[in-house]
Amino acid sequence: MSQEYTPVKANHVPLTPLSFLHRAADIYPDQVAVIYEDRQYSWQQTRERCCQLSSALKGIGIKQGDTVSVLAFNTPELFEAHFGVPMSGAVLNTINTRLDADTISYILEHGEAKVLLVDQELLPNAMEGISKVGRSLKVIVIEDSVAPAVASMPAEEQKTIASATSYAEFIAGGDASDNGELPADEWQTLALNYTSGTTGRPKGVLYHHRGSYLMTMGTVLGWALPMHPVYLYSVPMFHCNGWGHAWTMAAMAGTVVCLRYVQPKKMFDLMEQYKVTHFGGAPIVLNMLANAPADEQKHFDRTIHVMTAGAPPPAAVIARMETFGFNIMHVYGLTETYGHVLQAAPQQNWAQLKTDERAELVSRQGVRFPMTESVDVLAGDPPQSVPHDGETMGEIVLRGNTIMKGYLKNSEATTDALRDGWFWSGDLAVIHPDSYVQIKDRAKDIIISGGENISSVEIEGALYKHPAVAEAAVVAMPDEKWGESPCAFVTLKSDTTATEQELIDHVANAIARFKRPKKIIFGDLPKTATGKIQKYALRQQVSTPD
Amino acid sequence: MSQEYTPVKANHVPLTPLSFLHRAADIYPDQVAVIYEDRQYSWQQTRERCCQLSSALKGIGIKQGDTVSVLAFNTPELFEAHFGVPMSGAVLNTINTRLDADTISYILEHGEAKVLLVDQELLPNAMEGISKVGRSLKVIVIEDSVAPAVASMPAEEQKTIASATSYAEFIAGGDASDNGELPADEWQTLALNYTSGTTGRPKGVLYHHRGSYLMTMGTVLGWALPMHPVYLYSVPMFHCNGWGHAWTMAAMAGTVVCLRYVQPKKMFDLMEQYKVTHFGGAPIVLNMLANAPADEQKHFDRTIHVMTAGAPPPAAVIARMETFGFNIMHVYGLTETYGHVLQAAPQQNWAQLKTDERAELVSRQGVRFPMTESVDVLAGDPPQSVPHDGETMGEIVLRGNTIMKGYLKNSEATTDALRDGWFWSGDLAVIHPDSYVQIKDRAKDIIISGGENISSVEIEGALYKHPAVAEAAVVAMPDEKWGESPCAFVTLKSDTTATEQELIDHVANAIARFKRPKKIIFGDLPKTATGKIQKYALRQQVSTPD
Repeated sequence: MSQEYTPVKANHVPLTPLSFLHRAADIYPDQVAVIYEDRQYSWQQTRERCCQLSSALKGIGIKQGDTVSVLAFNTPELFEAHFGVPMSGAVLNTINTRLDADTISYILEHGEAKVLLVDQELLPNAMEGISKVGRSLKVIVIEDSVAPAVASMPAEEQKTIASATSYAEFIAGGDASDNGELPADEWQTLALNYTSGTTGRPKGVLYHHRGSYLMTMGTVLGWALPMHPVYLYSVPMFHCNGWGHAWTMAAMAGTVVCLRYVQPKKMFDLMEQYKVTHFGGAPIVLNMLANAPADEQKHFDRTIHVMTAGAPPPAAVIARMETFGFNIMHVYGLTETYGHVLQAAPQQNWAQLKTDERAELVSRQGVRFPMTESVDVLAGDPPQSVPHDGETMGEIVLRGNTIMKGYLKNSEATTDALRDGWFWSGDLAVIHPDSYVQIKDRAKDIIISGGENISSVEIEGALYKHPAVAEAAVVAMPDEKWGESPCAFVTLKSDTTATEQELIDHVANAIARFKRPKKIIFGDLPKTATGKIQKYALRQQVSTPD
Repeated sequence: MSQEYTPVKANHVPLTPLSFLHRAADIYPDQVAVIYEDRQYSWQQTRERCCQLSSALKGIGIKQGDTVSVLAFNTPELFEAHFGVPMSGAVLNTINTRLDADTISYILEHGEAKVLLVDQELLPNAMEGISKVGRSLKVIVIEDSVAPAVASMPAEEQKTIASATSYAEFIAGGDASDNGELPADEWQTLALNYTSGTTGRPKGVLYHHRGSYLMTMGTVLGWALPMHPVYLYSVPMFHCNGWGHAWTMAAMAGTVVCLRYVQPKKMFDLMEQYKVTHFGGAPIVLNMLANAPADEQKHFDRTIHVMTAGAPPPAAVIARMETFGFNIMHVYGLTETYGHVLQAAPQQNWAQLKTDERAELVSRQGVRFPMTESVDVLAGDPPQSVPHDGETMGEIVLRGNTIMKGYLKNSEATTDALRDGWFWSGDLAVIHPDSYVQIKDRAKDIIISGGENISSVEIEGALYKHPAVAEAAVVAMPDEKWGESPCAFVTLKSDTTATEQELIDHVANAIARFKRPKKIIFGDLPKTATGKIQKYALRQQVSTPD
């Protein structure tokens, strides 16, 4: 066929997750969109507030490509920023609430933020960060009756709050009927998310509208979401845009229940009160729920669907979760992939397995989400696909439309991450015969002992099966004989005891004996701002040979 | 932010529904993909057969942009063609099985078909069509043990079948491991679907890969599909590619139960045997199910989700369907929109309504699917949005990525259909205060009587509420006094009676009296090949004034 047509406005519309907000507000205007403490907004009200935010931002000169940063907890304002900021054409830069002032300063500077929306509780830290930026920055304060009282703050911060524009005032000046324009180009930058930066400065990951639209669609397919899910937003929205679920909930006209602080009692209470159907959280959050006092826990006679990511959840935790009525979908992703791109998608025959067997399968990182085009595990030089034998290790590589555009102002790192047609994850994994991927370690976390690769994750998995272990992290420790040997850091559950030898023997019996830790150190584990255990800090503790 | 990056292979993959097949086969290889009579294929087997078809097509010289036509019933071969043909780079052209030889000839000629896959039962008609094309065409015969025996055919067709390549032989020559390439450009043509052409020659509607990918995603969201649906394929796959559901079922790794002939008993039996969860059909199919002999009907204690389109389903039919356990989602679309783009999406408060009230709401065409970017109803010159009053009529216009590229070799009609940033549907509708669209008529079906617009659909809806009416169609009849007046054609249910006057009075009591038909003509209704009532034929019957 000779004749072809070029796209026109009627048949080619740039993909953007903003269109889901308009659809939800047009079709389900009165459906509850957001619940937070004593506040509640319908989808129509939410759109109006987003339009007001967008309009107010444009009113102070924000234009396409400008960066608007937000340092906030999971409150309605942060949810609204996911729509209102890009509606103005600006780039949404959510910042981790647990970062130090120095890193905040770095991000504001590097990301060229024009505006900062900041929760009142985080203002002191933010002001310290801003003071180091060396240029003025419009600051808008998100006031919250649930936050620690302003009166308890130092006098200087009280003054700042008093003189700053509040979010409520700011959006009140915006036009609630200004729906704005959708982006003219789906490749336009939507968000800027900084990596946690376990080594060196964090890198600024760029998302585009097309990617987040497809992330939304793919999440609905991969999680088989129903209409109108009730979603407890326990995943921080600053983290990969809360796995993109703000946009996903708009697509299904769901109800988002905001959670300011991750507290097990509060989570169980909200699940019951609002008939929550879905939530997400890192394994550490699941751990908190599992280990909460019995009188704070609630067991549900319906299924609540839980997405977990950030680390391979110990099988024991997954098994425990099922007793509450929670159905766990383990997923895998990175900031560079907009959040989850792999999932331990359940096979129909898994239902007949024993809980422990099923939990083992679910704890793998799994197979590609519908929007992920390709995943492979490559090893060697030149890199080749590893056999599906569950043993040969290689690096996870990914391809698809939910891979970042690149790192802001860092073309070297971008080129390195996006080489040879793949995004290189830095995670070491195997592929099982059923084609499910399982992470064995971060490339830099692998322990090489007497020439053998030992997976720290495998040892941690064995430790978690011990009834007294609440948390465990294993790192390489210099060893004069073997080069490196495994050292385990363990936090015990309250009211339990275990000796070093007991845990070493437990691991030796559970997995290959040579993989047993040579040393166990008890105590609390240092964590990054996103709740990941800081293995580099543990490594420093053991960096001199015994 | 100054720096931007251009797309690379790792982060920009052209959208194509073919990727869903690969995902289903990679992740759920043993899940049943297709069931037809005594045959059954897993997703892995299905991919292998699709690869074989693609490879075999390439083997006979088929290359990107070539047209491969298929004239077949809903058998596995037609399902496989939805993947195997585009995998070869070719354009899939499915042809309506009920077309006459002359129209088939026109389509093969106009579409420049290089190959025709044809069901053995349809071969005589196809051969007649091919004979008029005036050039040779590779013919591949889909043999089917369920089809009328070859021995009962005229001698000449028997010879053709004996000498032609069978589909089974043809794909046996293909390489089952040749996964082919995904398209390099998502705007590449995927399918060519001819309109039913109620007036003049049918037009060839061009679909692209991007559109069908998004159609798939949007269908899952809009219908809130679960994982592994069991889908009875009662919608002809030749019609808008069976509403795109071949690709949708791949995306959710569902099971497709093929249906060669639409027969109520067979449909009920298959629903029971395979625990069907979803199916689709025009209102006429629902009507057939509702009016089937009681001993052929089955009532289900689970919900079976039914998508219906093609005409506004009479509220009475929708209400009747619910008694079988069917949940009806009424949708609206055209060949030009890849199938459904609007849906009578249920609101949560509809559940409390009486069946009749709910059925009225469901019978509207509704609101936009998630992949549809915009819908409006425009009237006047220059065209303006009609008020949401449920009364002011205008033309439905649509915008989005599931609007056709254009009509093959017809830039004039293309430009006319895709003007001013909209696709102009030709359907006349109102918008209700809740923003749901309701069709009042095709532009050419409206009856203008004494200067008043009378909707033929409204009169038909009133007729369907009469217990004796099985089918009804209303057209304009020349009227010396009023210009036009409504004339109704009615088929009565078996074992029922009703007089002309009785039906006229029934309508006069149900809606505005001046809208009542002046005449009722009893008998069977002429239908197009897609099962639509041929109003133009009825109009011809009454084209001379009384």
